[in-house]
Amino acid sequence: MAAWSERKLISRIQKAAAIHRSDVLLSIGDDCCELATGVSTLISTDTLVESVHFDTSFHLPYLLGRKAIAVNLSDIAAMGGIPRFALLSLCLPEELEQEWIDTWMDGALSMLHEFDCVLVGGDTVKGNNLVFTVTVLGIPVNEGALYRTGAGIGDSVWVTGVLGSAGAGLELLKNRKKNPETVDNEAWETLYEAHLNPLPRVHLGQKLARSGYVTAMQDISDGIATDLAHICRASKVSATIDSELLPMHGSLLQAAAFLHMSPTMFMLRSGEDYQLVFTVREGKGKSFVEYMGEDKRLVTNIGSVTSGEGVYLLKNGKARDISFQGYEH
Amino acid sequence: MAAWSERKLISRIQKAAAIHRSDVLLSIGDDCCELATGVSTLISTDTLVESVHFDTSFHLPYLLGRKAIAVNLSDIAAMGGIPRFALLSLCLPEELEQEWIDTWMDGALSMLHEFDCVLVGGDTVKGNNLVFTVTVLGIPVNEGALYRTGAGIGDSVWVTGVLGSAGAGLELLKNRKKNPETVDNEAWETLYEAHLNPLPRVHLGQKLARSGYVTAMQDISDGIATDLAHICRASKVSATIDSELLPMHGSLLQAAAFLHMSPTMFMLRSGEDYQLVFTVREGKGKSFVEYMGEDKRLVTNIGSVTSGEGVYLLKNGKARDISFQGYEH
Repeated sequence: MAAWSERKLISRIQKAAAIHRSDVLLSIGDDCCELATGVSTLISTDTLVESVHFDTSFHLPYLLGRKAIAVNLSDIAAMGGIPRFALLSLCLPEELEQEWIDTWMDGALSMLHEFDCVLVGGDTVKGNNLVFTVTVLGIPVNEGALYRTGAGIGDSVWVTGVLGSAGAGLELLKNRKKNPETVDNEAWETLYEAHLNPLPRVHLGQKLARSGYVTAMQDISDGIATDLAHICRASKVSATIDSELLPMHGSLLQAAAFLHMSPTMFMLRSGEDYQLVFTVREGKGKSFVEYMGEDKRLVTNIGSVTSGEGVYLLKNGKARDISFQGYEH
Repeated sequence: MAAWSERKLISRIQKAAAIHRSDVLLSIGDDCCELATGVSTLISTDTLVESVHFDTSFHLPYLLGRKAIAVNLSDIAAMGGIPRFALLSLCLPEELEQEWIDTWMDGALSMLHEFDCVLVGGDTVKGNNLVFTVTVLGIPVNEGALYRTGAGIGDSVWVTGVLGSAGAGLELLKNRKKNPETVDNEAWETLYEAHLNPLPRVHLGQKLARSGYVTAMQDISDGIATDLAHICRASKVSATIDSELLPMHGSLLQAAAFLHMSPTMFMLRSGEDYQLVFTVREGKGKSFVEYMGEDKRLVTNIGSVTSGEGVYLLKNGKARDISFQGYEH
């Protein structure tokens, strides 16, 4: 296997960037790129570091490339924004195989294409370990971007999809690495997939931003105990969520039992689900569900916003403070 | 000395970002930041990796922080743009001292403030070695951004400032590290400074873009042999530069002699001068110099654009192809 060449990689990136789109005034190949922008631009950047954020022994390059993009698209989704442009900074060890990084690029580009986001710039450098920094630019929907600051007392708290799958998937993958003879459970594929290949809630985020009912939103990257606490702090309110209402995938219970861990712990504290947590204006829950139409199956009301501060979990009639008890990267 | 804490660093970054400016609609503290933008946005990203791009044994944190920002501002300068916003992604080893990264931040912020550029986002992660990724956004001057593509046959070739200082400074610093007993030469301070604390040509770049005389421009980060070759390739022309005309600092000759290296080699091939190389429209050289006024001492005509391809150095009446013989990072 041949080690990667910077020339080949840059040529690959330049080809990928050679997409004609009217809002790309100048693409890769100059000192800057020049983008046609509107009155406001959303921007987010995230860095993934080998052995801190991913394990290449079970996270294969195609899905890792997809995920490096997905976690940034998720930040745009959390504002209800429309992704437009991406920049990649790749720090790669000298001995990395060309095929590995080519496959990583295939994955990254597939995720960008899925969300109509075009690669416009970046940088490739040599370093001791893999570090991927992705920057994504987007625009808000016409109704405006959704901040963390808008939650009001009496609003209801909602999440998209299911919680805890990515966290349980990661633990199962780590367990399989340590004990390769463990019999795999087919039902766990969905949990592996949640960790290895998360799908950012881009379109759903836009629909929520357009609804006029959503008052605050953010994505779930560190577990809802932490991410909802961010909304509460920014909005100067408190939230209480009901452990009975937390949505989970059918196989989470069994996986948690196998791992001797609590399914609720996964749902509250484990990161990287890349779902959205949001609040719906007081008294508008029913109208909101009607507005969602077929997509109502993708959202779940898990609690409500109250005065005070912090996030509380209601279980067996008791409320317990769980603020910021999520995963720390 | 205490190791850095992510909490302290993020709090520091948040304080630095808490600058009220009407074009920052939403700063650090949400999933994205939201920026007021105009019809077009310039963007550039660069990654600096320890032991590849810098040596912390002689590059102290304050100046290193300044330089991490400067190399990105230089990309905006190369378009004649106005820097507006910056994002920082910091990958830091666990054992790094808090004071080191605080001082690095002081330096980075000082450079941002000097050019009225505001920190709006970023990411901090743990990793094995120092990796700094900086993304800078700017806007073109009203006359438009200067690309690499506009050089025409008959245009004259110019550079700002002097060449080779940063390259010679780096070699002198490396030499001093190996041979600490070497007697320092006061005249070399300017060369050290050129490597350790380069100043991006932001205001000069804007003046050049506004002139209406400049047809193509880029910054000198890899040595003029490579950087002018980029303009030639993008503009589908050739350039010939005269070795007698290359501007150097007074101490370069002596430093090169001390290092047993050629001063011309430093001027042509060594990177990181962060000066600008640009072309002036045929027949407009005199008007251009008049337009520059007092700043004419900051620009030097070093050659001209011809048909064909590649960059040629004229020396003792002979022209030699030097295309892409600059420094490779």
